[in-house]
Amino acid sequence: MRIAELSRRTGVPVATIKYYLREGLVPHGERTSPNQARYDESHLHRVRLVRALVEVGGLPIATAREVLTLMHEPGRGRLESLGKVHFAVQRARQPHAEAPSEESVARVAALVARRGWRARETNPARTALAGVLDHLDRLGEPDALGLLDSYADAAERLAGAEVATLVGSEVDHLAERVVIMTALGGVLLDALRALAQESAATAALES
Amino acid sequence: MRIAELSRRTGVPVATIKYYLREGLVPHGERTSPNQARYDESHLHRVRLVRALVEVGGLPIATAREVLTLMHEPGRGRLESLGKVHFAVQRARQPHAEAPSEESVARVAALVARRGWRARETNPARTALAGVLDHLDRLGEPDALGLLDSYADAAERLAGAEVATLVGSEVDHLAERVVIMTALGGVLLDALRALAQESAATAALES
Repeated sequence: MRIAELSRRTGVPVATIKYYLREGLVPHGERTSPNQARYDESHLHRVRLVRALVEVGGLPIATAREVLTLMHEPGRGRLESLGKVHFAVQRARQPHAEAPSEESVARVAALVARRGWRARETNPARTALAGVLDHLDRLGEPDALGLLDSYADAAERLAGAEVATLVGSEVDHLAERVVIMTALGGVLLDALRALAQESAATAALES
Repeated sequence: MRIAELSRRTGVPVATIKYYLREGLVPHGERTSPNQARYDESHLHRVRLVRALVEVGGLPIATAREVLTLMHEPGRGRLESLGKVHFAVQRARQPHAEAPSEESVARVAALVARRGWRARETNPARTALAGVLDHLDRLGEPDALGLLDSYADAAERLAGAEVATLVGSEVDHLAERVVIMTALGGVLLDALRALAQESAATAALES
């Protein structure tokens, strides 16, 4: 298909697709003349993936490129790449803040140990979590509204379900599902929480 | 205290505090001379709250102002304000995308009905959720990786715990806790999920 059809079928403007091509987020099509190229279903899928990562997952272009490159590393080391993909998406989705206090970093380490979670020291979520704990401390909510364990329970249960769905995936598809789950799963969960919160609050106000 | 001490104790640069003052996010201090004002503990707390909402929660300045104004509406209508605060924070945290398909909007309505959730048609999370479902459809993951019900279970359980902690709050403190929970709770949960995911993946790869 021509770029115009790629645009029509993905809903992404031609100018944006050209930008993705220039930035290396989408591979170039097969050139059919000096000014035209032909694209196939793989391009269609890639444009949709980039759009979801950038528009919904909020990934910066540079991170999307890093993730897409890691996703397509050939053969060996692919499982290692999965970990890198996971960390890269996380880093992009978490707020950039000052270094967290040693005390909060220690609290996170204690939580991870208490839970028996096997999470590396380099997992960027440790810093993000410690940073939020610092903010909550300063706001006079040192116990994270008393909800830290409820959140950890939910995270643990979800992670079990998430990883179970990945286990059955073909290797080729695995990295993409990790990216989708990490970048879009959080947005999905946020929206569901907002609906469930309204519902629970409505019920509580009546009782 | 002077603005310099306010800066030192909050870690927010003087220029940023002046910006918050100009934008109406922090009330002006008591003027003690043409060029100086005195601030108290309430200013200290407010600067910390604004910083958490903007830096961690990712709220735009305009939304933070809207939320802070709603939070301090006096007396009657305060519970109604709580709902507005909740929606405003949600809107800011969710991606701006094209209108979702009717089909996905209907899927969300069906999910809400199946769950027995009492969530208004105007809850902005409906549109956000429908938009993510559209993206997943286009990526060939129409069942949201098979995880939609797991996410909904987690959301429902968490919302129950969240609302239970709010019920005991004094009215003055209620709006602030709703804001903190909505803006920071999602970031907290995202970080915990990333740690639990790494742990579950590590265990799965070994077995």
